[in-house]
Amino acid sequence: MLVSALLTSVGINSGLCVLFFTLYSILRKQPSNYEVYVPRLLAKGSSNRRRRFNLEMLIPSAGWVSRAWKHSEEDLLESSGLDAVVFMRVITFSLKVFLFAGIIGIFVILPVNAGGTEIYEIDFADLPNNSLDVFTISNVNRGSHRLWVHFGAVYLVTIFVCYLLYSEYKYICVKRMDYFYSSKPQPHQFTVLVRSIPVSAGSTVGDTVENFFKEFHPTTYLSHTVIHQTSNLCRLMDYAKKLYGRLIHLQSDSNQEKNQQRKVDLVDHYGKRLENVEENSRLERSEVSMARHELQAAFVSFKSRYGAAIAFHMQQSTNPTDWLLEQAPEPNDVYWPFFSASFMRRWISKIVVVVACILLTILFLIPVLVVQGLTNLNQLEIWFPFLKSILTIQVVTGYLPNLILLVFLKIVPPVMEFLSSIQGYISHSDIQKSACNKVLWFMIWNIFFATVFSGSVLYQLNIVLDPKNIPSRLGVAVPAQFINVYEPKYETAGKFWPIVHNSMIFSLVLMHAIAVGIFTIKKLSTASTLIFPLPVLTLLFNEYCRKRFLPNFIAYPAEVLIKKDREDQDDATIAEFFDSLAITYRHPAFLAVHHSGTGDSLNRPLLSSPET
Amino acid sequence: MLVSALLTSVGINSGLCVLFFTLYSILRKQPSNYEVYVPRLLAKGSSNRRRRFNLEMLIPSAGWVSRAWKHSEEDLLESSGLDAVVFMRVITFSLKVFLFAGIIGIFVILPVNAGGTEIYEIDFADLPNNSLDVFTISNVNRGSHRLWVHFGAVYLVTIFVCYLLYSEYKYICVKRMDYFYSSKPQPHQFTVLVRSIPVSAGSTVGDTVENFFKEFHPTTYLSHTVIHQTSNLCRLMDYAKKLYGRLIHLQSDSNQEKNQQRKVDLVDHYGKRLENVEENSRLERSEVSMARHELQAAFVSFKSRYGAAIAFHMQQSTNPTDWLLEQAPEPNDVYWPFFSASFMRRWISKIVVVVACILLTILFLIPVLVVQGLTNLNQLEIWFPFLKSILTIQVVTGYLPNLILLVFLKIVPPVMEFLSSIQGYISHSDIQKSACNKVLWFMIWNIFFATVFSGSVLYQLNIVLDPKNIPSRLGVAVPAQFINVYEPKYETAGKFWPIVHNSMIFSLVLMHAIAVGIFTIKKLSTASTLIFPLPVLTLLFNEYCRKRFLPNFIAYPAEVLIKKDREDQDDATIAEFFDSLAITYRHPAFLAVHHSGTGDSLNRPLLSSPET
Repeated sequence: MLVSALLTSVGINSGLCVLFFTLYSILRKQPSNYEVYVPRLLAKGSSNRRRRFNLEMLIPSAGWVSRAWKHSEEDLLESSGLDAVVFMRVITFSLKVFLFAGIIGIFVILPVNAGGTEIYEIDFADLPNNSLDVFTISNVNRGSHRLWVHFGAVYLVTIFVCYLLYSEYKYICVKRMDYFYSSKPQPHQFTVLVRSIPVSAGSTVGDTVENFFKEFHPTTYLSHTVIHQTSNLCRLMDYAKKLYGRLIHLQSDSNQEKNQQRKVDLVDHYGKRLENVEENSRLERSEVSMARHELQAAFVSFKSRYGAAIAFHMQQSTNPTDWLLEQAPEPNDVYWPFFSASFMRRWISKIVVVVACILLTILFLIPVLVVQGLTNLNQLEIWFPFLKSILTIQVVTGYLPNLILLVFLKIVPPVMEFLSSIQGYISHSDIQKSACNKVLWFMIWNIFFATVFSGSVLYQLNIVLDPKNIPSRLGVAVPAQFINVYEPKYETAGKFWPIVHNSMIFSLVLMHAIAVGIFTIKKLSTASTLIFPLPVLTLLFNEYCRKRFLPNFIAYPAEVLIKKDREDQDDATIAEFFDSLAITYRHPAFLAVHHSGTGDSLNRPLLSSPET
Repeated sequence: MLVSALLTSVGINSGLCVLFFTLYSILRKQPSNYEVYVPRLLAKGSSNRRRRFNLEMLIPSAGWVSRAWKHSEEDLLESSGLDAVVFMRVITFSLKVFLFAGIIGIFVILPVNAGGTEIYEIDFADLPNNSLDVFTISNVNRGSHRLWVHFGAVYLVTIFVCYLLYSEYKYICVKRMDYFYSSKPQPHQFTVLVRSIPVSAGSTVGDTVENFFKEFHPTTYLSHTVIHQTSNLCRLMDYAKKLYGRLIHLQSDSNQEKNQQRKVDLVDHYGKRLENVEENSRLERSEVSMARHELQAAFVSFKSRYGAAIAFHMQQSTNPTDWLLEQAPEPNDVYWPFFSASFMRRWISKIVVVVACILLTILFLIPVLVVQGLTNLNQLEIWFPFLKSILTIQVVTGYLPNLILLVFLKIVPPVMEFLSSIQGYISHSDIQKSACNKVLWFMIWNIFFATVFSGSVLYQLNIVLDPKNIPSRLGVAVPAQFINVYEPKYETAGKFWPIVHNSMIFSLVLMHAIAVGIFTIKKLSTASTLIFPLPVLTLLFNEYCRKRFLPNFIAYPAEVLIKKDREDQDDATIAEFFDSLAITYRHPAFLAVHHSGTGDSLNRPLLSSPET
């Protein structure tokens, strides 16, 4: 790739950036777009949709950018929770690393590389037609002592990144504790999910749970909610929703005046079907709440957080495969489909997902290889001679490859999320975390290893140092959106941070491995030997962080739980909260929604459900 | 190796076996040897040392063998604990596997191998001069359908071993629970070991522990024993013991009549030194029990087993590197030297031990290679032509190699135990378990991999199937000894079983890998493909066992602990037991032993120690 090709790419991207920026500045001011850009403000009623037209609405402005970044961490914490704060810290962390590595790269490494003569001597007279290779480490002469500059850079970057990682981990860890201390009593803090409940013949799951916890946790046990087989009910309710949607659409559709009679017929038809389906749902709901539709799983709530923690930290029964306890997800975070899946189905899904991930990762090499072909235009001209007349060399080699890669990369996160969702997780946050990991390893494998065998070394180093790949799964949002657009569905209180930490550590060690390789090729064996302590120290640092911080991201310690529980003793609303716990974890299908107007009678279940 | 060489080896071993058997039969009946053969009976007073001489004492007899095996499991459990029972089950388990594989090997596999013609056709006329290779799988012709017999044998042996493993694991698991239910209250059940206690300036470790547990475990906390820096005191006491030994030796020594005056002088000299040292010990003991010699570690006892379990299952403090809790070892099982070791020293010891283990494993290849050289006598005759006249071929090729190997192997367990003892463990049982694992991996690596590259395949298969390697660390005892000789120092209640289980699983998978290799070499690719499900199923089986049984070997479940605690409520002696808990975990150096006769006054410490 030539310098001119790179410059073309920078030019095109900058142009597009200015264009999108301007468009956004104007579009966001149009009241008709408020639903897209500030839905949370609309919902809160703090933004008024109908404003009088004025000229300002058509002039792009930049004030919103500074406003977006001016939001303090406290604002963000209050409006969007700790996860949003952690996400913002990931972004600023990435920027810091990028800036540090970028400055060293451009002002120290690049001049050193350009000063070498291993490939070419740089041609200052015709700068745009120099190959980019002149600026890479390949151009430094073998055995040259200038390589010690690169050696120093590796040490510096590692120390800087580790220092940042440590302070971030520590900061987020403290924030996590503060967040917990300041939180209101929340259902998932008091609740555990119990699976593999062994039910003896003639007994119900509900009774078994009640007896077990009353016997072994008599002072802390509060209530339980047995999980029911609801897939049929959900199907019916989905169908009802779809019918209702069609009905609404039909009634509001005023264009088809020509076929008024047919429309009335259709409304009638759908209305009847909807009533039918809802009647069926009602019957199914009463049917499902019977004991014989119970699954061997239940949410069990305790009178204290510490009580719940004691239960899920310990093996309960003599048979370790019975009475499996885990921390309950938040009520909104529960992902219901997999409670009813059999052990076998879950097992097969897992294997299918693993195979699919591997296949996707391998098949993705195809676009990567196409891109590699494009950067090598000489080859391309031989294959397709007509190309030369259609496109300029700069666009094809400089801009198109990245564009193609990015388009293909956009497909990956949704696919990975889909794969994670059929893997058997029972909470949305687990699905997202798993998808996040999948995307990360996909990226590392594909972007890194696939280019390593053909690209230039500086480019590779840049990828490793370039932290924009790391929060790529998360990288779809900016503050403005957190505060005005997205309402977080669940709160993990920063549990995503360890993923970022781990991938940074991996990237650092990979960088060390590459450095060893380069110094060996460049015949500076002292440097490659002296790099060795670096990965060892980095891994020891990681081990220390795993011991020092990670446990607090998995469960809260006894000290914290007990202190928090003692606070509740003075809380007047706690009794009310405990009452609400008994129904918080009911399947949403039991909270009947009725679309047809057949009256309230349908809303009542035929039998009361057996939960406490 | 020729058949005749094998037969010579069998002959020599059988002869030695009969010789040792006869010697043992006679020696054990001599009253002067009772201290060696039945020390436990002597100690209990149930064996009378002075018996009148009779002729029977000189005639070898075999009755003790049947008596040794007649002991029921209940006898063994009562006299030597569950570990002894588990050990016996390991022995019988090994015998069962050995018998099953041996019968298949000799009566099915061996004739099939001998029927092949790949190497030689067997020469029935001169059987002793056939090479042993005739009986190995190497002799089966390529692509021969007789290889399906071997295929079947691999499946059969795997199924048999897995079945045995499952039933043993299940049996021992049940026994372990029974043993726990039937046990008297024991100090280690109620106690946890706390390390990394964060002490603020001006406070003692004892106060810190007391405050922490009174705050966070108010209902279950009972008492604590802070651990003190005692290495100086121990040195002094060891020295006193040595002096005392010399004194006793000197006083009882009646041979040196010629130098009576010198003897009196020496006795006087040692006596004075002993008094001196004991006075120093007494001062040191009072000194050590002061707060400034406290280590940041303590044994903390609880009022219930469940209380102790709750504490060590959960992270206690916000900083996960403070307040590290673990299950306490039995009081006799505590290995004191490593409480005072700094983090750095422990860390370096660990690295040194790992390096030493690797070196030992590699250096051990030297005797193994020598042995390999010996079995290849033709080579030897060329190097040392005089050998032929000194030794018969049979002894050198058939017996000597095994003898040399066995002698070298005898050195390994003590060396590994020494290495484990400096690795930082704080209980004897952990040291033994770690040594056990080290010896196992050493064996697997050396005996297996070192012979794999030169020996014949049947021999290798035999090593894998031959379970005598597995309990090799333990394999120094027979029942007679359990009951009459060894008094177990500690009781792990069967925690050694998982090691046996894991090594059997490893052996099975290794066998499958070898089988795949052989079937590929022998051009029977269908068979090598059809072996593949076997390691997968074996590993799944292992995973199931890990889930189903292993947790019960690590900690007792809540159900069991709570039931056991409830039993205690009716126990009148429990208050007394709780009182004793406060001093059970004191360092033995505080229990002063006095050798010099300077009166009881020295026995009293100057100050009372600060423990509760």
